Amino acid sequence: MKTKTEETTEKGAKIKITKRGEDFSRWYTDVIAAAEMADYAPVKGCMVIRPYGYAIWENFQKVLDKMFKETGHENAYFPLFIPESFLKREENHIEGFSPELAVVTHAGGKKLEENLVVRPTSETIIYDSFSKWIESWRDLPLLLNQWANVVRWEMRTRLFLRTTEFLWQEGHTAHATENEAEEEVLKMLEVYRKFSEEYLALPVIPGRKSENEKFAGALRTYCIEGMMQDKKALQCGTSHNLGQNFAKVFDVKFLDQEGTKQYVWQTSWGVSTRLIGALIMAHGDDNGIIVPPKIAAVQAVIIPIWKSEEEREKVLEAAKKLYEELKDGGIGVRLDERDLRPAWKYFEWERKGVPVRIELGPRDIEKSEAVMVRRDTGEKRNVLQKQLADEVKKELEAIQKNLFDRALKFQKENTFETEDWEEFKKIMAGDGGFVKANWCGETKCELEIKEETKATVRCIPFNEKASGKCIHCDKKAKEKVIFAQAY
Amino acid sequence: MKTKTEETTEKGAKIKITKRGEDFSRWYTDVIAAAEMADYAPVKGCMVIRPYGYAIWENFQKVLDKMFKETGHENAYFPLFIPESFLKREENHIEGFSPELAVVTHAGGKKLEENLVVRPTSETIIYDSFSKWIESWRDLPLLLNQWANVVRWEMRTRLFLRTTEFLWQEGHTAHATENEAEEEVLKMLEVYRKFSEEYLALPVIPGRKSENEKFAGALRTYCIEGMMQDKKALQCGTSHNLGQNFAKVFDVKFLDQEGTKQYVWQTSWGVSTRLIGALIMAHGDDNGIIVPPKIAAVQAVIIPIWKSEEEREKVLEAAKKLYEELKDGGIGVRLDERDLRPAWKYFEWERKGVPVRIELGPRDIEKSEAVMVRRDTGEKRNVLQKQLADEVKKELEAIQKNLFDRALKFQKENTFETEDWEEFKKIMAGDGGFVKANWCGETKCELEIKEETKATVRCIPFNEKASGKCIHCDKKAKEKVIFAQAY
Repeated sequence: MKTKTEETTEKGAKIKITKRGEDFSRWYTDVIAAAEMADYAPVKGCMVIRPYGYAIWENFQKVLDKMFKETGHENAYFPLFIPESFLKREENHIEGFSPELAVVTHAGGKKLEENLVVRPTSETIIYDSFSKWIESWRDLPLLLNQWANVVRWEMRTRLFLRTTEFLWQEGHTAHATENEAEEEVLKMLEVYRKFSEEYLALPVIPGRKSENEKFAGALRTYCIEGMMQDKKALQCGTSHNLGQNFAKVFDVKFLDQEGTKQYVWQTSWGVSTRLIGALIMAHGDDNGIIVPPKIAAVQAVIIPIWKSEEEREKVLEAAKKLYEELKDGGIGVRLDERDLRPAWKYFEWERKGVPVRIELGPRDIEKSEAVMVRRDTGEKRNVLQKQLADEVKKELEAIQKNLFDRALKFQKENTFETEDWEEFKKIMAGDGGFVKANWCGETKCELEIKEETKATVRCIPFNEKASGKCIHCDKKAKEKVIFAQAY
Repeated sequence: MKTKTEETTEKGAKIKITKRGEDFSRWYTDVIAAAEMADYAPVKGCMVIRPYGYAIWENFQKVLDKMFKETGHENAYFPLFIPESFLKREENHIEGFSPELAVVTHAGGKKLEENLVVRPTSETIIYDSFSKWIESWRDLPLLLNQWANVVRWEMRTRLFLRTTEFLWQEGHTAHATENEAEEEVLKMLEVYRKFSEEYLALPVIPGRKSENEKFAGALRTYCIEGMMQDKKALQCGTSHNLGQNFAKVFDVKFLDQEGTKQYVWQTSWGVSTRLIGALIMAHGDDNGIIVPPKIAAVQAVIIPIWKSEEEREKVLEAAKKLYEELKDGGIGVRLDERDLRPAWKYFEWERKGVPVRIELGPRDIEKSEAVMVRRDTGEKRNVLQKQLADEVKKELEAIQKNLFDRALKFQKENTFETEDWEEFKKIMAGDGGFVKANWCGETKCELEIKEETKATVRCIPFNEKASGKCIHCDKKAKEKVIFAQAY
């Protein structure tokens, strides 16, 4: 029989993390495994979200759900299955989603009369209900949200970033006027920006999508785009102004205050488990992931250190006292009492990106101190036990700020402005990054740029003015946009 | 153009609730519609859970999730799709679920190599992960829970009670010993009992299922059974001891402390949106549903009453003050400011089962009072405004207690004990109810009883002793059980 330490050493020895500089893509896969965030499932492209990863998603849900409710939205639940004919009613919608659908053809031992699609998004099934619920202006605005799983049959999948099934929320609203719908779309984009920047510590660029990148069936799509450590862009959330497109095909009408029947104006907006991927790629380092304190499942972990059974008892007693104090102080704290070598515990919690580690050994106890270690910088300092709760709180705030600041610095350092096509190509062929440039606004040109450089229009930021000619073709520039290679 | 009142009258006039005594089944459908809890979806047997119904489910989730975490469980998420071959590995499991499966045969525009089943329950896909995660005794017990949607293709469906897709939680655990697994199974049954009785105000009878009624693939199934107002039984939650059945087919082994490889012992347990149906059928009356205060989305509603614009302003000001006071007192309160006749608002909130209604008109304000009305008894009394928060809290407690007490009284009055088969048949052919009787324990006999009376063994309660002969056949009694017709 192996000793406990040997067993643990074996388990620890399995964890090897590729360096970011070596192979960013392998690093990503490695840190997810090392932090026990998720596994690939036996079904192609599906994932198993493990407890540590799911606890982070639960925190996302808690914060976002509160923000949605504060902006007047209620949750509801609509069916997983959508009749195939529903999806076909909105022409652009079915064209966009058709290649990605999973289809139920048999159920209860029989072939179905009509195939059922596993929802890739729920506009069509939800607006069928809207058409029954909405009668007059009194029923507007209708502000709903749904937390659900959706399925899009993707060819290439990556954990969190692009999986066949993923978890998300989808907001769906109906309004009496075009203006109100546009206000809602921008309000929810702002909710997403705030969530990304204040909770995920991820600076994002809000803007509008190009025609080519907008949601299938929308009038306009807005988005927030973040930069990952490999300088690629990741779309972190989208908010769609659907106009009256779906209202017309699902006959969602209301009687206005003058007694006239009118089509409603609609919006939809969503973020998904993809944001966990964003968090990993924005902040992680060569030792593992780093979870921003405001969204961390575990904010601080206490590691008691002992050599003898006598020490063990004494140290655990002090550790439990500190644990209670931190808990009472509102800190998400865990006490790791396992009978393992402290160094192994350090590595494990480092891989899992817990923001603050507290080490407590017999000598610290003699001095009424503990050692506090920051995950983001590795800084280590002694803190008096009686000040520990306060100091941890300050440290968590400092870490949250530092993660944001350094991500913003990185984004700024890797955002370039150019009017020269050769320079544009050079950047995209080299280290990449965001390039702010003038663009003609035409899809044909956008696709040519993509073909040559793999870069696409990530967004058309607000309050930017185009001037001169398009970066790629000779036409007059219509927009100043952000180009980047993207996930 | 219609006036507001006419419009509302029309809407109100649509709501007709069949009396319970006339047709319980239609009453059930009517109150769900009248309370805007749920709709049937355009897909056969699926439902749309409307915001008011979903808010109640969210409250269930909040309470249960806390109880699961307090008993050491963590949440995780596993795929919606299960390879058909996985389900087939456990013989009884596939036999039980095979007739109810929805099957994805095509995805991404192609026929799949292996059909995928939409999860009817997740034992197989979860235990595939368990087999990868569990290595030694250190990894046990593994205590997980999943909140998810599942699909069972049912022939006859009823909103909440039996729908093709439903929402639930499924707990899945693995243990080192048979004893530990049995302890877990009973611990979670007790969580469900507590939740039903203390939150849903629904008295239940805990016990074991007969062989015929147990979960497909389990060693033993435990359950809690509640009595509805039509005297039928509703299974409100189940907890399964899976033994090593699944461990053996999914090869879930651990290295014990002596260094020997052993199969784990497993449990699974779940409750679903069906519990919303239980709440409706246990407490509702001819005016609508009644939501127990501890689980209500809205615990108290304030209805301001005015005739002139001048009164309106004054009353709304006082109403807002009361709203804030109640909110600060921790009461889930809503202020209904809509420009509708007070009587229409009373009816609406009555249909929605809000436990306490507060009426506030100009004359109440003059006396610094408000009128408080109980949903369960209709009792109405004047309360001084400064005592309102306290009085509402007391009233909510009293309502919670009364709902439980009267449901328990009803259950006791309609539970009979007999040793006479003719009497048994008479009860089941008449008003029905629970019949406690001796039984031989054989499936053949149970099925004969069902054939003749539509009653089945609902559960074998703990601490009951059999004596004499089986109620139906001449064999020696093995168990004393509860028989009833059931949902």
